[in-house]
Formats: sequence, C-alpha cells, structure tokens
Amino acid sequence: MAIVKPSLAKGTRDFSPAEMEKRNYIFNTLKSVFRKYGYQEIQTPSFENLQTLTGKYGDEGDKLIFKILNSGDYLSKAPDALLAEKASNSLIPHLSEKALRYDLTVPFARYVVMRQHEISLPFKRFQIQPVWRADRPQRGRYREFYQCDVDVVGSESLLNEAEFILIYHEALRALGLRDFAIKINNRKILSGIAEIIGKPELIFDMTVAIDKLDKIGLDGVNKELLERGFTEADLAILRPIILLEGSTVSKIEQLRSVLAKSETGLRGVAELEEVFAYLNQLDVSGEVYNKYVELDITLARGLNYYTGCIFEVKTNEVSMGSIGGGGRYDDLTGMFGLKGLTGVGVSFGADRIYDVLEELDLYPKHESDNTRLLIVNFDKSIEAFTLPLLNRLRQAGIAVELYPQAVKLKKQMSYADDKRIPYVLLIGEEEVNTGKLSLKNMKSGEQQKLSEQEITVLLSKQRADSAIRTDQ
Amino acid sequence: MAIVKPSLAKGTRDFSPAEMEKRNYIFNTLKSVFRKYGYQEIQTPSFENLQTLTGKYGDEGDKLIFKILNSGDYLSKAPDALLAEKASNSLIPHLSEKALRYDLTVPFARYVVMRQHEISLPFKRFQIQPVWRADRPQRGRYREFYQCDVDVVGSESLLNEAEFILIYHEALRALGLRDFAIKINNRKILSGIAEIIGKPELIFDMTVAIDKLDKIGLDGVNKELLERGFTEADLAILRPIILLEGSTVSKIEQLRSVLAKSETGLRGVAELEEVFAYLNQLDVSGEVYNKYVELDITLARGLNYYTGCIFEVKTNEVSMGSIGGGGRYDDLTGMFGLKGLTGVGVSFGADRIYDVLEELDLYPKHESDNTRLLIVNFDKSIEAFTLPLLNRLRQAGIAVELYPQAVKLKKQMSYADDKRIPYVLLIGEEEVNTGKLSLKNMKSGEQQKLSEQEITVLLSKQRADSAIRTDQ
Repeated sequence: MAIVKPSLAKGTRDFSPAEMEKRNYIFNTLKSVFRKYGYQEIQTPSFENLQTLTGKYGDEGDKLIFKILNSGDYLSKAPDALLAEKASNSLIPHLSEKALRYDLTVPFARYVVMRQHEISLPFKRFQIQPVWRADRPQRGRYREFYQCDVDVVGSESLLNEAEFILIYHEALRALGLRDFAIKINNRKILSGIAEIIGKPELIFDMTVAIDKLDKIGLDGVNKELLERGFTEADLAILRPIILLEGSTVSKIEQLRSVLAKSETGLRGVAELEEVFAYLNQLDVSGEVYNKYVELDITLARGLNYYTGCIFEVKTNEVSMGSIGGGGRYDDLTGMFGLKGLTGVGVSFGADRIYDVLEELDLYPKHESDNTRLLIVNFDKSIEAFTLPLLNRLRQAGIAVELYPQAVKLKKQMSYADDKRIPYVLLIGEEEVNTGKLSLKNMKSGEQQKLSEQEITVLLSKQRADSAIRTDQ
Repeated sequence: MAIVKPSLAKGTRDFSPAEMEKRNYIFNTLKSVFRKYGYQEIQTPSFENLQTLTGKYGDEGDKLIFKILNSGDYLSKAPDALLAEKASNSLIPHLSEKALRYDLTVPFARYVVMRQHEISLPFKRFQIQPVWRADRPQRGRYREFYQCDVDVVGSESLLNEAEFILIYHEALRALGLRDFAIKINNRKILSGIAEIIGKPELIFDMTVAIDKLDKIGLDGVNKELLERGFTEADLAILRPIILLEGSTVSKIEQLRSVLAKSETGLRGVAELEEVFAYLNQLDVSGEVYNKYVELDITLARGLNYYTGCIFEVKTNEVSMGSIGGGGRYDDLTGMFGLKGLTGVGVSFGADRIYDVLEELDLYPKHESDNTRLLIVNFDKSIEAFTLPLLNRLRQAGIAVELYPQAVKLKKQMSYADDKRIPYVLLIGEEEVNTGKLSLKNMKSGEQQKLSEQEITVLLSKQRADSAIRTDQ
C-alpha cells in the first residue's frame, strides 16, 4: 500500500494526554454537579437515521449535517435521471440513510419518545458527547466538538429553572471562575413586547435585532428594526424597554407596567419572579441572585423552540462569547409525535470553558491522573530489587513506572520531565544495600533518602489529597 | 415538518442511566489500572481522511468502513462515465473524502507519526472510544461499539509484555472476575514451526487452521491443513506441537527441542521465558503466572502485523468468546512512513465484559453516582423549609432532589423507586415543628426520625464509603 503522509481531517483535533487531563477535569467537575442535582447520564449513538435529523435544524442546518454514504452498491437504486443531472441534493436520500449527530437535543427527544413507557417523569438527564457539523472550520470552530447538555422533561415546576441557575453557579465556581453573569429572560416577555407594539407577527424579527445590542449598539438595532418592518413610533416604545436599567426588582416593576396590557407578557414577568423566589429560598444568602443573576431583556437566543425562561452565561474575566445557554421549551418531543411534554435545559460550552481556564491559568497544578513516580533503571542487575518494589508500590495504589530499559540517566530524567512525573527514585547498589532510597522531587530538585515505607506513605498521602480535590 | 416515528439506526444503541452507570464502572476501573501502570489517555477524531484508513484493514475491511458523503454539490466533480455506469466502488473517492474510525490502532499510528517530534518515547497511551463498522448487525455485534486499547510504542523491553499480563490480571480481578486465562504465544514460535516443516510461506495458512482447534477439534484442523497445502508428513510433525501439554516449564522445554533448528523459533521461546522471568520478579508470589497465565501454541490472532508475543484472554466462568487480546508489532507506524518503531499493546472487549459482569451479577449494588435522597414534596407551603434544606444538603456534597411539585405521594415514591434512590425524606408540619425528619430506607422499608445533622452525617458517610470503592 502507498505511504500516505498522515494528516487530520479538516476541522478535527487530536487530544494529547495533557489536553485530555484538562478536558476530563472540566467534564468530571460538571458531571459531579449535575449528579448532585439528580441528573443522570445517558448516551445516544453517533449516527441516526437521516430522517430523524432532517428538517429539525432549518435548511441551513440540514446542509451542515454530515451524511453517511450507504454501504455496498449504493448507486444501484439511485434514479438514472437524477444521476445524469448530477442532482446532488435530490440524490441524498437515495445514497444515504444515516447521518452524524448534529446536536444532543434531537437525539434526546427521540430517546424520550422511544422510551416514554419506561422512563419515570420528570426525567432528568445529562449527556456529554461529540457532535458534528460541516461548518467551515475557523479559529475556535471545529467540525467535531463536544456538547454538554442537562435537561429535565415532564416537569412544569419553575424550581427546575432556579436549580439550573444554581447548577451554572456551582459548576463555574468549582472550575475556579469568579466573575460571570447568568443572564435570564423569558420568551413570553418578548412576545408581550411584540404584542403591545401591535406586531406580534414580527416577534422573530424583533428578537433577532435586539439580540445584537451588545454587538451593534442601539443605533444599529434601530436601523435593523426599521429594515425589518418596524416604524419610528414602534422604536419609541421599544427604546426604554431595550435600555432597561436598574436592579432586577426595578426592572421587573418597569416591565410589569410596560406590559400591563399583554397577558402573555405579564405571565412572563410572573414566571421570572417565581424563579427568583425559588432561587432565594434555596440560596438564603441571596448571593447567587445578587451577584451572578442578570435580567437581560435583550437576550433572545436564536432557537425558536424556547417558550419560557431563557438563559445565557458570560464570563467577565476573559473576552469570550457565551459559555452556556438554554431555556424552556414546551414541545420538544412534538416532532416525534409526543405532544405536550414540557422541558427545560441548559448546556455548557466545553471548548470555550477550556480556553477560559487556560487563559486564567485555572487548571489544577497537581495532576492526579498522572504517574507519580518513575523508578530509574540504572542496570539490569538491580531489577531483582526494583521489580518487586514496583509491584508493591502499585499494590499500594500508587501510579509508578520503572523505565523499561537501562539507558542513559539523562534520557530517563527527561522522560520524567516530559511526562510531568513529580518524583523520581534513584536506586543503585548503595541504595539496595542500605534500603534507603534516593527520592528526587522533580519540581524542587530536592533529594531525600527514604525507606520504602516512607515513600509509600508520602505518595499515598498525596494521592488521597488529590483524590479529595478531584472527587466527583 | 412530517412527523417521523422515531427509531434507532440499525446496529446502534442508546444507553440508559442504569446502563451508563455500569459502563462507567467498567471504564473507570480499567482507566484506574491503566494509569497505575503509567498509561495516559488520548483521543482522536471520530472521522479521518479516507486515505488514512483505506488499505489498512484488507479488502473486506475497506468495505466495512463507513464513508461520509462530501458536503455541498458533491457530484459536481464526479466523472460522468462512472456515474452512467453506476460504478459505486470507483466513485467512492470522488464522493467521499472522510470516513468513520474503524479501530483505534490506525488513528494511534497516525497520531504518533504526526507528533513524533514532540512525544517522548516510550509513549504509553490508552484510548477508549467508539469505532464504527458496516457489519451486518447481530446478537452482540453492533455497528457502533467501544474499543479500549492500551499500547506502548518505542520500547523493546519485554517488561512491557509482563506488565500487560499484570494489567489484565489486576483489571479483571478488580471487576470481580475470579477464573480466567491470560493466554500467551509468540509469532516467532509459529514462524519457527512453519520453518521446521519446511513451509515458511504457509505460515498464514497454518496459523489460521490451528487457531480453530477450540472450535473444530484436531480432525478439523488436520483437514483444513491438508486443504491448505500441508502433507500427512507435515501433520505428523505438527500434531505433538498442537497438542502440547503439561506445565508451562515443560511446554517451553518441548518447544525448545522441537524448534532446535529454527533460530526464529528459539528466539520466540527465549522471549516467552524472559516475559515469564519479568512476571515472576514483579509478582514474587508467582500467583499470576501459576494461576492465570497459559502458554497456548494454537493462539494465532488473525492480525498479520503481530511479530512477537501475542495475548488473548478468556473467562472460564461464562461461555463467551475472548474478552481481550493483543500483542507486539514491530512496524505499526511504517504505514505512515515512520519505520522501526516497535510497539506492544492489548485491548479489552468492553461490550463482552459488560455482558459477563451482568451474567455473574458483579456490578456494585451501591450506585454511588445516583441521587442519594429524595425529599418528598407534600405541599407548597412546606417549601420554605425544604428548599433551604435541599441546598444545605447539596452543599454538604450529597446528591439530593426535591420532587418539583406537590403531587400524590404514591407517584413520588414510585419516582424514587424507578430511579433507585435509596432514601426518601418525608417532611410534614410535624417534622417542621420538631426538627426531627422522617427518613425512609427504600430497600428495607425502615423509617427513622433524625435531625438534619444526623441525616447529613449518615448520607455523607455512605458517600465517602462508595467513593473509596469506586475510586479511580
């Protein structure tokens, strides 16, 4: 076979041991918080029947779904006419019946519908798996990336919304973030605003425009609103709403007055108040509500299926887009024929969180997953001493390696360095005779003579410490 | 959009929370053993450039690789003549440039070659990820399944082989298996046998035939050997080798004498002896060697790239194919132009191990990942008591849920049952007034009145116990 200079497929990444350690740190931290709130893990297959995915993400989305070519003689049933025309689009269903997962939401809806008779509602699940999109790759945008979703279906209670605020708070604090905003809004408030302007049919155009306030400023938003069919008179009503300021309590007051004539709008305000009431009963200190929650009326979130509260999380410590978002949807499973099942969920942007922790240098310094000790291999003759020692240390639960061959010391030390192994054990004839082994701390350079038992205690203790820190 | 009755793509599976817990238990156990022996995790992308995979698995393998249809107008560059002929096979490279991972070995080789200047040898990695094969699905065979590989490249030392025996032993024992065989052989011994028969060119036919001894018996093997070009005289030489019996030491003796005239064969025998010597120096009790290791001369393992020791693991407690296998390959990365890099590795058959543990009822009874306590929601008026309590228990690290609405007790109890939540807390007016809360053990049915502090201690203690048990 011809030798191929190897390369990665466009938009994909390998993860090295050091990167995996950081990724696992993030995922384990998130999982441990999700579990504390009663969420359980599920996984769905990497590919679904094409018809399960088609039509769920809009026309643009459909194009970005990776389709899998049928196996065998996949052209045998393709219509000749379409082939002659090279009708790529029309031929897809003839050549492909499977496609790669595009998000975790649609497969979750499929899962719930297929298992509706065996799952007990409310069903609280989390799911951390890769998804694939045929986007043009660019900095920070990959064709394979992980999504990290937490959802509950089958419970109308707004306690769930309050708990998602706490989940965001607890998870991001656990990862070391100190300054972030958990933004909240409610689709019913947005509907109410479109209603009082008298243009409920333009709700989509309105939300798309005001969602851009951060990026294009008020003038930009106004310009876009005019282009999308609003009048100067509408803008006069919208302006104070868009620019709403003050404490959350005062924003709520103002909204209640603005929306006085919209039943839907008032329902949205009442929902927000109930979420805040739950939050403050849970967190009696009020810290989360006062310090982290921000009612943001310009928050719209693109997805049309949200019907109640919507969330978005931004860090203030690093310049970065949102690191999380979500909301309530009243008809997630309708697309598969199961009506009236309400759900609410949020997701964490793991790749962005990864970059944030990197930039803020927030990863644990102490790699608990890693080899703790390298035994230097000076000479094959000493293996009669080092091999049983190696085995005993492992039996004590310590991650240890013996360098597998007696090569130059420098090479072995640089192996320990490269692998960030914190301790190296140097055993020569003298050490064998006295039973006092030379343990070198690779960070400080300090070298101590210790007995096997002292070494076991030292390394076991550190292991227990790190286990507590990374406990999930 | 049309409503689709949802279904899974053929040969794929969802994993429910209960299944995920068991799978995570297996993966976490394996990872913790791999790490103890100095192996670090990497991950590679789900799809690779098609040319990275093509030609690595033989013609049959190539057919089983799932190809991804190019995005956009994928037919525009397809030759008209091939389209007119419906030449499915020849058109593949025109329609597809990416394909799903078929195993973890080829992507690992690609990884090593691409990072050869940054990784420090020996490079010890493990990788646990799904792979995809367009096989006909059948009982126990899926189109998406996980592989679980541990390999070291860049070290000739047979210490690695001995450590893999210990890794198998430790991991399977940790999973609760008691009776299994770690079979070992050496490709050089097989080559030596073909050599002394005078038919080195038939080594492949010979190994394919004798590999079937278990299934088709000696007569079957002999029949197949005759069909594949061996003579009755050859069979006479082969018979005692195939039927080799006795202790490992005695088998080694006999092999040394049979193979006296084959340099390669003797080298294979010497390699086995060195592995056993390492093993017995590590495990001075000799238990692993005596109780679990079996020198099996009929063990061939299909893959042609093995050049030294080969392994296969079978459980004797359940009727099941091999639950693991591997070996040494002297030229893994040659396919990508990096010559002379030796490697050795093993894999664990996670799906089969899953079934074995299920059949032997070996999963931990105590689900540490799960919600530990459900607070029953009797009445919204009690939420002023239950919500802060809920938050305090979570801050103590306990996974707790408050049922999100005050529905019938029966429904809440069956929620706890279905979710296998071990404790339920019943809080009514009396409990609020006295501060003594009714804790019900869902397994025993026993109910106790306890203070919040007593409950916290009870559930924290159990959590610590289970953390120790599932410690990775």
